[in-house]
Amino acid sequence: MSETLEMVQAAVETGEGVAKFGPDQPLRLDSGAKLEGFQIAYNTYGVLNADRTNAVLVCHALTGDQHVASLHPTTGKPGWWSRVIGPGRPLDPANYFVICANVIGGCMGSTGPSSLNPATGECWGLAFPVITIPDMVRAQAMLIDQLGIETLFSVVGGSMGGMQVLQWAADYPERSFSFISIAAAARHSAQNIAFHEVGRQAIMADPDWRGGDYATQGLRPEKGLAVARMAAHITYLSEAALQRKFGRELQRDGLSWGFDADFQVESYLRYQGASFVDRFDANSYLYITRAMDYFDLAAQHGGVLAQAFSGAKDKRFCVLSFTSDWLYPTPEARTVVRALNAAGARASFVEIQSDKGHDAFLLDEPVMDQALSGFLMSAAVSRGLCL
Amino acid sequence: MSETLEMVQAAVETGEGVAKFGPDQPLRLDSGAKLEGFQIAYNTYGVLNADRTNAVLVCHALTGDQHVASLHPTTGKPGWWSRVIGPGRPLDPANYFVICANVIGGCMGSTGPSSLNPATGECWGLAFPVITIPDMVRAQAMLIDQLGIETLFSVVGGSMGGMQVLQWAADYPERSFSFISIAAAARHSAQNIAFHEVGRQAIMADPDWRGGDYATQGLRPEKGLAVARMAAHITYLSEAALQRKFGRELQRDGLSWGFDADFQVESYLRYQGASFVDRFDANSYLYITRAMDYFDLAAQHGGVLAQAFSGAKDKRFCVLSFTSDWLYPTPEARTVVRALNAAGARASFVEIQSDKGHDAFLLDEPVMDQALSGFLMSAAVSRGLCL
Repeated sequence: MSETLEMVQAAVETGEGVAKFGPDQPLRLDSGAKLEGFQIAYNTYGVLNADRTNAVLVCHALTGDQHVASLHPTTGKPGWWSRVIGPGRPLDPANYFVICANVIGGCMGSTGPSSLNPATGECWGLAFPVITIPDMVRAQAMLIDQLGIETLFSVVGGSMGGMQVLQWAADYPERSFSFISIAAAARHSAQNIAFHEVGRQAIMADPDWRGGDYATQGLRPEKGLAVARMAAHITYLSEAALQRKFGRELQRDGLSWGFDADFQVESYLRYQGASFVDRFDANSYLYITRAMDYFDLAAQHGGVLAQAFSGAKDKRFCVLSFTSDWLYPTPEARTVVRALNAAGARASFVEIQSDKGHDAFLLDEPVMDQALSGFLMSAAVSRGLCL
Repeated sequence: MSETLEMVQAAVETGEGVAKFGPDQPLRLDSGAKLEGFQIAYNTYGVLNADRTNAVLVCHALTGDQHVASLHPTTGKPGWWSRVIGPGRPLDPANYFVICANVIGGCMGSTGPSSLNPATGECWGLAFPVITIPDMVRAQAMLIDQLGIETLFSVVGGSMGGMQVLQWAADYPERSFSFISIAAAARHSAQNIAFHEVGRQAIMADPDWRGGDYATQGLRPEKGLAVARMAAHITYLSEAALQRKFGRELQRDGLSWGFDADFQVESYLRYQGASFVDRFDANSYLYITRAMDYFDLAAQHGGVLAQAFSGAKDKRFCVLSFTSDWLYPTPEARTVVRALNAAGARASFVEIQSDKGHDAFLLDEPVMDQALSGFLMSAAVSRGLCL
C-alpha cells in the first residue's frame, strides 16, 4: 500500500503555503485574548477552478497536520488520508482543490505554543493563550478569505476534524455547500476528558517539561509525551482490533521474567509512543486536547444543539460513525443527526460496520469510501461542478 | 454508609497476623527462582469452627490488600469489601472464618519488592523475582497450611482476586469446597496488557523511580505512579458511570482558560492518583500488573481451559460478571463457565445488570449480594455447616 501511495502522491499537484496575518488582522479568541500576528501553514492538492467552486477544506485530527495527501516531511510516510484524497479516490485532486491547514495551536507551521512570542522573542510555552475549536475554525475562515474563496464546496474531517466541520456549520453555514463529519461528536464526554487529562498529567509530570518552558532550555518532555500517546493510542483501537492484531503473542520465544516488552502489544505501544515524539510538540498536545475537552457545541447555543445548526437549513450533511468506535460512539453521531434534522438540514447518516475502532476513518474502509464518493458526487451535481 | 461500616467493623472479631516461612520452606516461583525466607501478612474475621470447615479465603485485586473488612491503617477508610463481609452480609463472620492475605509481591506486609533482600540488606527493588498468579496462590496455600486448615469452605475474589480463585481451582481443587470468581477472566487480553503497559511506562518514566532503586535513595516515583493510577482508574468505570457522575460539570463557575482541573472528572482523577500514592508502592504496581499480564490459565494446560479444571469435577463454582465491565467483559466469564461445564464442575453463572463498570464488584450491587448469599447458603447446607 505504502509504495503505491507514494507513487500516486508524486503525480498530484501539491502546493505548500503559509498564510500570514499581521497585527491589523488579529485572531480573536474565545478566551477574550487576541493573537496579533499569526500564521497558518497549509497544503493544497489540485487546482482551484475558474468559478472558485471546487474547494474542499479538510480538517485534521488531534495529532494530524496539513500533510493529508503527501509525504510527511518528518516521517517520510504517506499523508494520513491518502486513502481518501488522490487519483481515483473520493476526493480526486483532478476534480477538487483540496486544502488542509495545520490548526492554530499546532506544531507543523501554524502559530502555536512552540512559536516565537513576539513580545518576548522566546517560545510562547504556556503563555500561549488557550484556544478552542471555534478559534481553529475562525483562523481557517481567515485563510479561506486570503485564498480568495468565498464558498467552499465541502468541509470534511474525522475525529477532531469532524468537530471542526460541525463548528463550521454552526459559525459559517453560508460558506460551504456541504459538510462531512466522521467519527466525531458535538461535545467531549467525561471519559474522553478523563483520557486527555491522563495524557496532560503524564506530560506535566515529566521534569523536562519545565512548566512548559522546555524549548527555551533546549529540552523536550519526550517520556511524558510518549506515555500520553500510548494511553491515547489504546482508545483509538477497539479491543477486537487489538486482540486480532496482537492477542497475547510474544516478542520472543519465551517470557523475559522482567519488564522488557514481552508481548507484541507492549512493543507496538512503545513504538507508537517513541515515534510520536519525533513529530509532535508536547505543549501543542496540551493545547489541542484542551480545545477538544472544551468543545460543546450545544452549550455554545443555549444548550440546544439544533440551534447551532439554525443557519444550515437545507445544507447537505454527511455524518459517518463506526460500530466499534468507543471514543465517539454512534449515539454521539445520532445526536448530531437528530439536531440537523430538527434544524431542517439535509443529513445523510451511515453507521459503518467495522471492528477497527476509532482509527477506522484513517484505514481501509471501502464502505466509508463508497459513502463519501456517493455523497460528494451527488453534491457536485447539485453544485453544477463538471467532474 | 461509611460511618455505619466503621461501627459494624468495630463489632467483628478481627485478627491480624504475619505468617513467616524460613529458608527450609522456600516459595518456588514459576520463573524458576526461589524465595528463601518470606512472609505473608493476613487478616482474619470471625472464628474457625471446631471442624475447621468454615474458612473462606478472600483474594484481593491489584491494588487491594488484606484489610478487606476492617479500617485501612493508612487511609482510615472501611475495608474494601465491607459490603460483602460483615454482620448480616453474605460472608458473615458469625458464620465464617474469613481470611484475606496480602499477595506475594504486595506492599502491605507480605514479601515484595519493597521488602529487604536478605542477600544485600537493602530493598529488593527490581532484583525481586517476577511473580505470577500461580505463585501468589502457592504462597496462600502455604499460609492455609500454617493456619492448620486442610480444606477451605470457599475461595472468593473479584478482578485479580477472581483470577486467583480460578488458579486455586486449577492447582488445589481438593482444598476448597467451592469457588467464587467475580469480574475476572482466565487470561489477560491485549487491551488489558496495553493499559498495564501504559501504567508501567508512566512509573518507569518518572526519574524518581531510579531503575527501581528509589527506596534506597529515599525517593518515591509519585508522579509516575499517580499517572498509572489515573489511566487504570478510567478502565474501572464505565463511560455511563463517568457521564452520570461527572458529565461535563465544572469545578468552578467558568473555565480557567488554562491547565487547572476545570472539569470535575479531571479533579476526581487527580485525587485518585494523588491519594493512591500514599498507600501503594510503585514497584509492587509493576510486579502485580506483570503477574496479571502473564496470567493465561489455558496456556498453563496445553491451551485447553477445561483441562485446567480437570481436578474440579463436581466442585461448586459461582461465576459473576457485570454488563458494563469492559475490562473483563461477560464473554470472558462465559469462556470460564463453558470450560467448567466441559470439566464436569457445577457452575452457577450470573451476569449482573449494572452501569458501574468493573468496579461494580466493590460497590452497592444488591443482585451481587443476593447471588453470593444464595450460592454460599446452598453450599453451606451441602457442606453441613450449621449457620
